[in-house]
Amino acid sequence: MKNHRQAFQQDNKNRGRLLISCPDQPGIVAAVSQFLANHQANIIESSQYSTNPEGGDFFIRIEFECPDIESKKPLLQEEFWKIAQSFSMEWTLSFVHDLRKAAIFVSKELHCLRELLLEWENGDLMMDIPLVISNHPDAKDFVESFGIPFVHIPANKNNRQEAEQQQLKLLEEYNIDIIILARYMQILTPTFVKAYSEKIINIHHSFLPAFVGANPYARAFERGVKIIGATSHYVTNDLDEGPIIEQDIKRVNHRDQVEDLKKNGRIIERSVLVRAVKWHIDDRIIVYDNKTIIF
Amino acid sequence: MKNHRQAFQQDNKNRGRLLISCPDQPGIVAAVSQFLANHQANIIESSQYSTNPEGGDFFIRIEFECPDIESKKPLLQEEFWKIAQSFSMEWTLSFVHDLRKAAIFVSKELHCLRELLLEWENGDLMMDIPLVISNHPDAKDFVESFGIPFVHIPANKNNRQEAEQQQLKLLEEYNIDIIILARYMQILTPTFVKAYSEKIINIHHSFLPAFVGANPYARAFERGVKIIGATSHYVTNDLDEGPIIEQDIKRVNHRDQVEDLKKNGRIIERSVLVRAVKWHIDDRIIVYDNKTIIF
Amino acid sequence: MKNHRQAFQQDNKNRGRLLISCPDQPGIVAAVSQFLANHQANIIESSQYSTNPEGGDFFIRIEFECPDIESKKPLLQEEFWKIAQSFSMEWTLSFVHDLRKAAIFVSKELHCLRELLLEWENGDLMMDIPLVISNHPDAKDFVESFGIPFVHIPANKNNRQEAEQQQLKLLEEYNIDIIILARYMQILTPTFVKAYSEKIINIHHSFLPAFVGANPYARAFERGVKIIGATSHYVTNDLDEGPIIEQDIKRVNHRDQVEDLKKNGRIIERSVLVRAVKWHIDDRIIVYDNKTIIF
Amino acid sequence: MKNHRQAFQQDNKNRGRLLISCPDQPGIVAAVSQFLANHQANIIESSQYSTNPEGGDFFIRIEFECPDIESKKPLLQEEFWKIAQSFSMEWTLSFVHDLRKAAIFVSKELHCLRELLLEWENGDLMMDIPLVISNHPDAKDFVESFGIPFVHIPANKNNRQEAEQQQLKLLEEYNIDIIILARYMQILTPTFVKAYSEKIINIHHSFLPAFVGANPYARAFERGVKIIGATSHYVTNDLDEGPIIEQDIKRVNHRDQVEDLKKNGRIIERSVLVRAVKWHIDDRIIVYDNKTIIF
Repeated sequence: MKNHRQAFQQDNKNRGRLLISCPDQPGIVAAVSQFLANHQANIIESSQYSTNPEGGDFFIRIEFECPDIESKKPLLQEEFWKIAQSFSMEWTLSFVHDLRKAAIFVSKELHCLRELLLEWENGDLMMDIPLVISNHPDAKDFVESFGIPFVHIPANKNNRQEAEQQQLKLLEEYNIDIIILARYMQILTPTFVKAYSEKIINIHHSFLPAFVGANPYARAFERGVKIIGATSHYVTNDLDEGPIIEQDIKRVNHRDQVEDLKKNGRIIERSVLVRAVKWHIDDRIIVYDNKTIIF
Repeated sequence: MKNHRQAFQQDNKNRGRLLISCPDQPGIVAAVSQFLANHQANIIESSQYSTNPEGGDFFIRIEFECPDIESKKPLLQEEFWKIAQSFSMEWTLSFVHDLRKAAIFVSKELHCLRELLLEWENGDLMMDIPLVISNHPDAKDFVESFGIPFVHIPANKNNRQEAEQQQLKLLEEYNIDIIILARYMQILTPTFVKAYSEKIINIHHSFLPAFVGANPYARAFERGVKIIGATSHYVTNDLDEGPIIEQDIKRVNHRDQVEDLKKNGRIIERSVLVRAVKWHIDDRIIVYDNKTIIF
Repeated sequence: MKNHRQAFQQDNKNRGRLLISCPDQPGIVAAVSQFLANHQANIIESSQYSTNPEGGDFFIRIEFECPDIESKKPLLQEEFWKIAQSFSMEWTLSFVHDLRKAAIFVSKELHCLRELLLEWENGDLMMDIPLVISNHPDAKDFVESFGIPFVHIPANKNNRQEAEQQQLKLLEEYNIDIIILARYMQILTPTFVKAYSEKIINIHHSFLPAFVGANPYARAFERGVKIIGATSHYVTNDLDEGPIIEQDIKRVNHRDQVEDLKKNGRIIERSVLVRAVKWHIDDRIIVYDNKTIIF
Repeated sequence: MKNHRQAFQQDNKNRGRLLISCPDQPGIVAAVSQFLANHQANIIESSQYSTNPEGGDFFIRIEFECPDIESKKPLLQEEFWKIAQSFSMEWTLSFVHDLRKAAIFVSKELHCLRELLLEWENGDLMMDIPLVISNHPDAKDFVESFGIPFVHIPANKNNRQEAEQQQLKLLEEYNIDIIILARYMQILTPTFVKAYSEKIINIHHSFLPAFVGANPYARAFERGVKIIGATSHYVTNDLDEGPIIEQDIKRVNHRDQVEDLKKNGRIIERSVLVRAVKWHIDDRIIVYDNKTIIF
């Protein structure tokens, strides 16, 4: 893993990304691209979306290569701030070699955690994973075999607040940027959600908005659906109502019992969650109007 | 079309199908297969499903080739009746060369109707289509170009009963076996539904149970789903709650507006409906516990 | 259809598109976006791809809204020419209200032709279709029912050159921009292909590069594949070796005979071809190194 | 794992399966089902396929529940032998609680091995895995963490025969029933293949028959395909020409370099291989005419 990471950071030592939302008007791309050209930055990839050319909103993701970006960071931030002001932009400028720090939360079902750690070890998820938190001890050995600290914080309906306080303290201590709920079966309080707004990614084991809430596979079986699904979304205070990032499905048939739906579902849950996390750490997602724009 | 049909009927002049449900117990297959062997019938295709070997239910679909089946029809029916009695079977024995008679109901959106008629003309839907009924005149020319009678019966919330009486009279007159709601935008009364129980196939333009009811695409857009769907089901008196026959999906993204979802949806609606109809006329469907077994 | 078209042209009367390829270097986007800003054009959608930031190639598609574009057309062309020179660009500037003129070539299998004409009539394929050419008379009635001229030019191995001369004369006469081979079962000569380079779109009834050439379904059956496919590509002089635009697949199983593969295949052939044509007329395709970039 | 296995064996202690191929004729199902009824066996699942009712071949898979099957094993085998004789059947009668013994062969790419072992540990692949053999030492720790012996047998072009002799000795010693090539990058000799005919399952990293042989992803990239695939098949002496068991695909686009195709490919390779193995150990596969019938 270390080798993958170092090679990636070396390959991307001059790579930056801009993610911008603002009211649409002529001249935005010209201003941004002129700014980049002025700093000898070459645009490598760019995607844009406008809700409506007149009076709508404008969104862009730009990935660029800029020589000696390390030394120019403060300057770039400062100068872009002026452009951002004049176009009323919400924006982030990130540097690809600064890896995100992700905390994974898990309960007893480990398939999503496993997929995340294996993809991470392969070098297919470029982020740091400073810790895994669980309300059960089951994942301890597996997590520690990757050299990642595992923290067991028993959590349930009755001790939610205390458990979250412990969690928040750890998240702060480790400078966590993104929380991945890898089948973490506890509801988070509004305080927690607010502290990591648009930074908590959940995997729900149904094709939302079908089967919001508990036991989606049992209810899918009951309804006799021919296709099951999984949905990854940002967590908000409305249960399973946050902005959807990615969904996928799998065919089932009358022979499949609830257990079979669960087995089949695991295969899509894990890949949907990994895709959502990948897009998040690649700065490909903008949340807009409780939906996601995926560049 | 006539040539396709005649060739098909000739090819299948000795072909029969048994569709059976009953409480499971040892010896069912032996009894049925012995019965067929006694009549020199050769089993061509057979699929079986049991919910539970002890105290569960048993389902089977058997397709067989039986020399001189035409002359043996009454005998087969009569003799099978005895076996059916002894195992408490619900059953149908059908003869493949006796084509089903389908009535198609349509409103203003014609893509499903078109697909049905084109597939029918290709010889890919082996049934008779004695009439098309619509509450709008739009489809008239297209339907009549296939030599199929088109009946315009204005129907809406206010005249539902009278309209249905006209419809029922026509359905009886034409000996209709199956009613296909090809985006027919009227709700049917319990009287109508009861008269054609498990014989009315609808296409709903969402991935049920998500977006039951009106305007599913607008609601899918609002929710920001990444995948849209279509569902074909038998009509019951609970709106969009009948046994699901088939579903399919299509990826969409943030660029897709409601109109785009509709356009993309049409492509899956039409193919899902055609598959459902095909399975119905091929005697591949058994309804069980508000679900379908598809053999 | 006329209403769809007029509404579309009205909605897009100020809409333009730039499609650019050139050696990559810093400042390209800045120059192009400054040019558009100078003409009060607002960029609505933009996608970019670079093969390699250093010494690689750069590709961009920009869709923009420019007030009074009609009166500015010559000016835009002329001024952009200067930018294009300085960056060694290959480029096209197109105006969305100027619809492409497509000729459809067809033989005896009509499913792709049907899909194209129905999608066109729905308003889902915004182009003009001045004529359909066939080496068989079968499609005549269907084509003419849309008010489109149908020309029967018998073509086979022996009269290829004369047939093509007739075809080329018609294509020129009708100012055809794009030729759609909707299961046209004749090979085109190098002369013909050269005259419409990157403007002839074919649908091949296999998942290329599997089953290049004749009888792909029979060969797929022979090999026992579990998935069949269809491929749309630009025609070059190497049979079925041109740049692939789009592919799709469908599951099959051991019960499917060659005829069933053909039936299933038709469903994907038609949708793959329609998508490829749509992307072409929306200026979403750049051919590069015998591959396609699809924006 | 042990708990899963014991529970499975207990649940299936009376479960048997018949897999039969023979020339088609009337009366086969009657004879087989009568035989089962005579032994108080209840047919739980049954699927049948005939290539042609007249002069064709007949295939059936029957799963049944038979009280005290353990004590009846020799009797069932002996009595069925008589029926088999009279219909010229090829057949296997297997008992579900007798788990298959699989050996996994692997080289340096470990994603397929990982998936197999994790699915196995989950209880989703009901078989024994007495050993893993590799021509590289990389997988040692991972394999041994599951308590499975790992044997490193360096193998390459030059020592193929000696390496295979060591392997064959181990396979015999451990009574191996099935060999899974989980990205094992060595070609097997005809002697080896013959010894385990229709018992060696390979995963090829392309959508066969496209890209037979080495470096399929590099060649897929070169050709500019829009969809990549993976194929699981039984190994024969014709490279990548054995009976296809399962295939699956994944969309790619012009941004995907060879490395990206490999990453995306791993996701389908592993699930395709697991499905193929599952069907094999569930006795769902009959090889016929270099194709597979999957029940």
